Amino acid sequence: MRRKRGVRPGTSPGIERHLEAAPPAGAPPAVVRCIDYGRARCDVADVGDLAGFLHRPRPAGSRVRWIDVQDPNVWTIQQLREIYPIHTLAAEDVLTVPQRPKIEAYDQHLFVVTHMLRLQDDHVADEQVSFVLFPDTLITFQERGGDLWDPVRARLAADSSPMREHSAGYLLYALLDSIVDGFFPILEHQGDRLEEVEARILERPSTRDLHALHEMRRELIVLRRVVWPLRQAVDELLRAEHPEIDARTRTYLRDVSDHAVQVMDLVEVAREIVGSQTDLYMSSVSNRMNEVMKVLTIMASLFIPVTFLAGVYGMNFAHMPELAWVWSYPAFWAICAAVTVLLLLHFRAKGWIGGAEGRAPRP
Amino acid sequence: MRRKRGVRPGTSPGIERHLEAAPPAGAPPAVVRCIDYGRARCDVADVGDLAGFLHRPRPAGSRVRWIDVQDPNVWTIQQLREIYPIHTLAAEDVLTVPQRPKIEAYDQHLFVVTHMLRLQDDHVADEQVSFVLFPDTLITFQERGGDLWDPVRARLAADSSPMREHSAGYLLYALLDSIVDGFFPILEHQGDRLEEVEARILERPSTRDLHALHEMRRELIVLRRVVWPLRQAVDELLRAEHPEIDARTRTYLRDVSDHAVQVMDLVEVAREIVGSQTDLYMSSVSNRMNEVMKVLTIMASLFIPVTFLAGVYGMNFAHMPELAWVWSYPAFWAICAAVTVLLLLHFRAKGWIGGAEGRAPRP
Amino acid sequence: MRRKRGVRPGTSPGIERHLEAAPPAGAPPAVVRCIDYGRARCDVADVGDLAGFLHRPRPAGSRVRWIDVQDPNVWTIQQLREIYPIHTLAAEDVLTVPQRPKIEAYDQHLFVVTHMLRLQDDHVADEQVSFVLFPDTLITFQERGGDLWDPVRARLAADSSPMREHSAGYLLYALLDSIVDGFFPILEHQGDRLEEVEARILERPSTRDLHALHEMRRELIVLRRVVWPLRQAVDELLRAEHPEIDARTRTYLRDVSDHAVQVMDLVEVAREIVGSQTDLYMSSVSNRMNEVMKVLTIMASLFIPVTFLAGVYGMNFAHMPELAWVWSYPAFWAICAAVTVLLLLHFRAKGWIGGAEGRAPRP
Amino acid sequence: MRRKRGVRPGTSPGIERHLEAAPPAGAPPAVVRCIDYGRARCDVADVGDLAGFLHRPRPAGSRVRWIDVQDPNVWTIQQLREIYPIHTLAAEDVLTVPQRPKIEAYDQHLFVVTHMLRLQDDHVADEQVSFVLFPDTLITFQERGGDLWDPVRARLAADSSPMREHSAGYLLYALLDSIVDGFFPILEHQGDRLEEVEARILERPSTRDLHALHEMRRELIVLRRVVWPLRQAVDELLRAEHPEIDARTRTYLRDVSDHAVQVMDLVEVAREIVGSQTDLYMSSVSNRMNEVMKVLTIMASLFIPVTFLAGVYGMNFAHMPELAWVWSYPAFWAICAAVTVLLLLHFRAKGWIGGAEGRAPRP
Amino acid sequence: MRRKRGVRPGTSPGIERHLEAAPPAGAPPAVVRCIDYGRARCDVADVGDLAGFLHRPRPAGSRVRWIDVQDPNVWTIQQLREIYPIHTLAAEDVLTVPQRPKIEAYDQHLFVVTHMLRLQDDHVADEQVSFVLFPDTLITFQERGGDLWDPVRARLAADSSPMREHSAGYLLYALLDSIVDGFFPILEHQGDRLEEVEARILERPSTRDLHALHEMRRELIVLRRVVWPLRQAVDELLRAEHPEIDARTRTYLRDVSDHAVQVMDLVEVAREIVGSQTDLYMSSVSNRMNEVMKVLTIMASLFIPVTFLAGVYGMNFAHMPELAWVWSYPAFWAICAAVTVLLLLHFRAKGWIGGAEGRAPRP
Repeated sequence: MRRKRGVRPGTSPGIERHLEAAPPAGAPPAVVRCIDYGRARCDVADVGDLAGFLHRPRPAGSRVRWIDVQDPNVWTIQQLREIYPIHTLAAEDVLTVPQRPKIEAYDQHLFVVTHMLRLQDDHVADEQVSFVLFPDTLITFQERGGDLWDPVRARLAADSSPMREHSAGYLLYALLDSIVDGFFPILEHQGDRLEEVEARILERPSTRDLHALHEMRRELIVLRRVVWPLRQAVDELLRAEHPEIDARTRTYLRDVSDHAVQVMDLVEVAREIVGSQTDLYMSSVSNRMNEVMKVLTIMASLFIPVTFLAGVYGMNFAHMPELAWVWSYPAFWAICAAVTVLLLLHFRAKGWIGGAEGRAPRP
Repeated sequence: MRRKRGVRPGTSPGIERHLEAAPPAGAPPAVVRCIDYGRARCDVADVGDLAGFLHRPRPAGSRVRWIDVQDPNVWTIQQLREIYPIHTLAAEDVLTVPQRPKIEAYDQHLFVVTHMLRLQDDHVADEQVSFVLFPDTLITFQERGGDLWDPVRARLAADSSPMREHSAGYLLYALLDSIVDGFFPILEHQGDRLEEVEARILERPSTRDLHALHEMRRELIVLRRVVWPLRQAVDELLRAEHPEIDARTRTYLRDVSDHAVQVMDLVEVAREIVGSQTDLYMSSVSNRMNEVMKVLTIMASLFIPVTFLAGVYGMNFAHMPELAWVWSYPAFWAICAAVTVLLLLHFRAKGWIGGAEGRAPRP
Repeated sequence: MRRKRGVRPGTSPGIERHLEAAPPAGAPPAVVRCIDYGRARCDVADVGDLAGFLHRPRPAGSRVRWIDVQDPNVWTIQQLREIYPIHTLAAEDVLTVPQRPKIEAYDQHLFVVTHMLRLQDDHVADEQVSFVLFPDTLITFQERGGDLWDPVRARLAADSSPMREHSAGYLLYALLDSIVDGFFPILEHQGDRLEEVEARILERPSTRDLHALHEMRRELIVLRRVVWPLRQAVDELLRAEHPEIDARTRTYLRDVSDHAVQVMDLVEVAREIVGSQTDLYMSSVSNRMNEVMKVLTIMASLFIPVTFLAGVYGMNFAHMPELAWVWSYPAFWAICAAVTVLLLLHFRAKGWIGGAEGRAPRP
Repeated sequence: MRRKRGVRPGTSPGIERHLEAAPPAGAPPAVVRCIDYGRARCDVADVGDLAGFLHRPRPAGSRVRWIDVQDPNVWTIQQLREIYPIHTLAAEDVLTVPQRPKIEAYDQHLFVVTHMLRLQDDHVADEQVSFVLFPDTLITFQERGGDLWDPVRARLAADSSPMREHSAGYLLYALLDSIVDGFFPILEHQGDRLEEVEARILERPSTRDLHALHEMRRELIVLRRVVWPLRQAVDELLRAEHPEIDARTRTYLRDVSDHAVQVMDLVEVAREIVGSQTDLYMSSVSNRMNEVMKVLTIMASLFIPVTFLAGVYGMNFAHMPELAWVWSYPAFWAICAAVTVLLLLHFRAKGWIGGAEGRAPRP
Repeated sequence: MRRKRGVRPGTSPGIERHLEAAPPAGAPPAVVRCIDYGRARCDVADVGDLAGFLHRPRPAGSRVRWIDVQDPNVWTIQQLREIYPIHTLAAEDVLTVPQRPKIEAYDQHLFVVTHMLRLQDDHVADEQVSFVLFPDTLITFQERGGDLWDPVRARLAADSSPMREHSAGYLLYALLDSIVDGFFPILEHQGDRLEEVEARILERPSTRDLHALHEMRRELIVLRRVVWPLRQAVDELLRAEHPEIDARTRTYLRDVSDHAVQVMDLVEVAREIVGSQTDLYMSSVSNRMNEVMKVLTIMASLFIPVTFLAGVYGMNFAHMPELAWVWSYPAFWAICAAVTVLLLLHFRAKGWIGGAEGRAPRP
């Protein structure tokens, strides 16, 4: 529930107000990488001087330009806006995290926001990614460095890659596809953990398992919150006839939507299993309590009557005829044994011992 | 669930019946502030004599008039109705709190009701706000003084403010946007509290945490009850082609709707987390009970048998041969030690001591 | 879940079969009141001889006739049907309680059924009300006497009442509005009770509170069951173009629908709060159990070891050297004190005493 | 969840494969009753030789033929199919139980399946009923003998019955109406049982009540499973323009749909009440446990300290000065009384005694 | 939640990338069986050399070719693609398990994926099945060997089988029908287990039952996850006008959709019953705990006071007048008996003994 760069209620909408402040001195500049590619070539450039780079002409034979900005700040976006007319509300959404995954069509470009989830040290890392799609240019903004797109870059760089023959819309598809396919390893990891937890709960449950279930439930909430609107966004992309998305790309986007539905399905299944395991845990705690209580009750019930009897014959009344009798002491032990045996039989009939917890009490 | 100015069932609809009573003598008059603005000017007036003010002509170059009424009463509204034809049902809704957020199109004006939520001393203050939008005038009614709109007023007052070039519909947008953006700090505050509570529950749960969760659940109910219909109202504003809302303002209203969906999302997530934490709390209480019971059972089980034995040899039977034997007393202690050790081993095997609560009982 | 006048499955539909039996001798006749009103006049008549009354001509200047029947029986309805062609299925629905609120358009009249809820001695009284709307006549059937409509009657009777200028459809609106507005006092009453119960649960919960919550849950089920279909019925009245409802009345009916949605909203909120308070109650019961168990465990743990020790030195073995030592008795007390102190420190470390229930057990 | 005549997966669809086997020798033949009726006559025939009967001409003046088959088998259906072209898939559905209530339009007839529920010895008996509606013939198949249709048969047989003037579609309506009206007595019976259970739970809950609630929950599942699709089927009958159903019958079918919605409503209410009562039961069990624990804790706490004291002065140390003092014994009793009084005051302050369970523990 | 052949996020879509690797040496080849049938003939061939087989002409009089591939690998599919233009995304879906049941229309063929569930040793075996339907050829891919289709094969092989006159679309129907009908035995098996579990829970519940319920809940999740989208897929097949599916087949497909709805229904009912039985189990555990606690409390309460009394008269005070009295000892026993009787009467009044757990405590 983080909201990194808060918006003060009541201030004017759009990116302009953020520009009033001067760039902080020590802030690291955004990392910008630009890939220009066409059927015959693929040029990768790490851009230091963004303004200069953008004003230089694109290489000959470049069909699509992909500008990838990591950790964007308002001044980088403003430099991009000098060439690319990114809408001020879209620019603001890039900077404000977290956004709900969505697609918005502006007059001059498509704007897509989503989240990229990755496993990092057994935890789910969540990063907002924004796409601005112009007819022959795709600008991507990543909240942080590190992404799932290296295979896509490798495909672009490979000799005679079929991907280089597609439009910028296909590049958008390929990146979205990577993001959605990236949810599956997370779910597989969760599936493994769920099986471990289930095995432990069935054998020897501990609060650690409950905390693990609680943790997983939270992760599933995050996943669902990302995947559901993402799928809606992709479906909207399929429904509306955006000129940036050609028919062939649309067939592939259907695949992305399909995968998103699969993820949703798996998330729902996992949620149900987490719920069922929580119930299992709770009932196992109840059973253990039952077990503890039974031990206490059996111990106390066996010894309380005979302890009383021992107390009786420890009394110092002057006139207690039994005290003098010779067979009193053996009789005492015999009574104790009889009481114990009777009580044990009673408890066995109740199913508390012997047949153990498998039997119901006879009311 | 307050309903401040109750409506007696069966009375005639509209504001007229409220006018029959004379204004109470000591009631404070409504606070009315009027801002007239246009491209070149912005006049702010705190209006004492409303009737007189309304009959005076508007300043030259004023494009939009914003009349802001705090703590409205029926007589103030009636004075406004002499100039502005506010529908009688709308006027009644202004006076009746709480209303569900809604938009209603009357012949001569748009009517919007919503709630403004603010954090006050860690509590959520809820205030009803109504908007009556005429082509060049916006009348706002606030249930109480104090609002989130000072930044908007500052933007209007600023030199060469771009906002002064927009219509009254844009002013409505800006105020609604402030209200929706004002939900985020509340949710952030809740998020912080949720994390505190979770940390405490995982470490040392107390009923205080449960009451905090209950409190948060109630606040989330209030939030959801406000945001959901508000979003519906904004979407209706987008869908229907009200002449008061121009196309440009509509683009911005889409942003408000988007923020409202985000708020809904966060509210749902918070609700789920509150639910999950309540489960966690309940199970931690069960675990503590288990712990207490185990201590009792171990203590009782260890001492009950040996106490019985001590009672036996405290008996005063004349014929108890053991009493006379020399090694009886050491033997007694040896038996006590043996029983204790055996029971401790038994409890360890059950996982009640040593490996502690991490082990399951062996049934 | 009452169904007063049961229908035997398989019998023929409609009212005819009820007419076969002769009117029971001692049954009280239905109470019929008729109000004829127009712009200039308003005549109220308590009708004894219904058949005669209906055949007499209506007073001159009467625009709308409102016939209000309390506790209707099949013979009264049959008398009405001689003049007014009430459909046989509608007539049957009037007599069969409970009906689900609904609106049905028959060829010659509109038929509306709903329930009127009132607070009676802190309980919700539920009464079925049916409306048969002809172009200039409204017939209302109340299951029992006593209603919420006296203010409407007063408005009709008042001099120069604006209401007398409206059609019979407006009268239907006014009566429905009274019924829906009558739900609010019930909800306010419930809100008050909920706050009382919450205060008690937070301080000192008792089963009485749980029963109160259960009671409220049942009342909310009743409310929801009435309001939800009622709202649907009103919306259908708005959507369909029934000639009996003119455009002006439609604007007012929108208000009724709006109030019904508000009631639904409040009911849902109340249901959630009842659920949350039930959870709170349950957990408070668990906490109290915990508290009880802790007292028992502390008491038992403190005294069980020292009682054993006392038992040991109450034994009558001939050879117990300690018995003869002078400092044995003071040493006994010292050991008891030491054991007690150690156990108290242990319990304090566990958070059972001192810091009380606010601390988690250290496993 | 029975499925009497199982279908082996992969076999060919339709009734044909069932015909391969020869009729079993000892199987009782289906009971067939045929009613031919028209405006002036009504002939009832118990048909022994079905094939012969069907080939005979219908009586003059017979407008509608109703063939009622009880406990149908494949050979009976095949005999019917020689005259009436029942679709093979419909014929198979007649024989396969349970079917979900549905309506299917085949080229030559309408096919309706539903379930008839009746109270038998306090239990709900469930029987599948199928209708095959030709323009002037209705064939009904009942899974077993015994039904709710005797009143309909009586109405047909009555002199100058208005029902005899209607079409076969109206007969279908009348039978469906009987079935739906037959759900109400079941719900009333359940309502009575729910009130009994509630009274018992509030006063003295037992596991018997829990089992009753579980039983009712199962019955409500069955009811809902039958009524919901039945209502959908009736609505489909209303929507689609089947020539077998004339306009007048459609008005009456609307009534059936309305009753089905009422049943659904009552079922949902009953489900909620069952859920609420289950919660009540569970909490009452917790309260009783609390009560038991309190008794134990009070008894133990009162006697454990004084028993220790008695043990102390039962010790046989040679040097125990108190033993010799004259006022020791009265002092012992005084101490015991003091301890008891202090503990009782303490428990009273905690609300465990006196004010009983109505007070919260002071932590 | 298995996903056998994982897709690395970011790689190019389609089957091509899988072809880069050479076929592993020791991998068993896919098992391919081909059935060519027409009105007059039915040829079954176990295909070893797939490429050669496919290039040979089809037998004369063969109307439909069914190629059934078990355990498909990428090279088998590639061989098929030389003749049949299976879309690359469809081919990839065949190889990737698990897929969500779905139907996709490609330009040259229909593609259907679903799951076949079978009972194997009391467990539900889940196998993905894909269908590629060309106008006169159906290719099926089974994840593993072993299926439910032998009856269909037998029907094809039977002399003068009516099935041989149908199109390839009808074959698709027949196979889907087998799959859906195959769900019923699983549900019946579950129904039996549910009844066993219920009987045990009502009589003597054990954790084993809870684990069985948890297991069933998981199976129901799997079932629902398969049936729901399968039904959607069949409905889409019915809605869209695919040329491969003729009108007659469509009538039969409606039957499949109907069965799928029945399965869904049964799954939902089973889920509710599992939930209700889990509640029953939990409450029975609570009841048993109650029972245990009551035994402990009664035993302790009966003996604790009299044990104290015995302790008192075991004290060694020099001045205890009672010790010398003659009737002291009988009086002691009388007091013990009186205390015991009083306590027993008290417990009986509370309903703890005698009337047993059927009575509520009197607070």
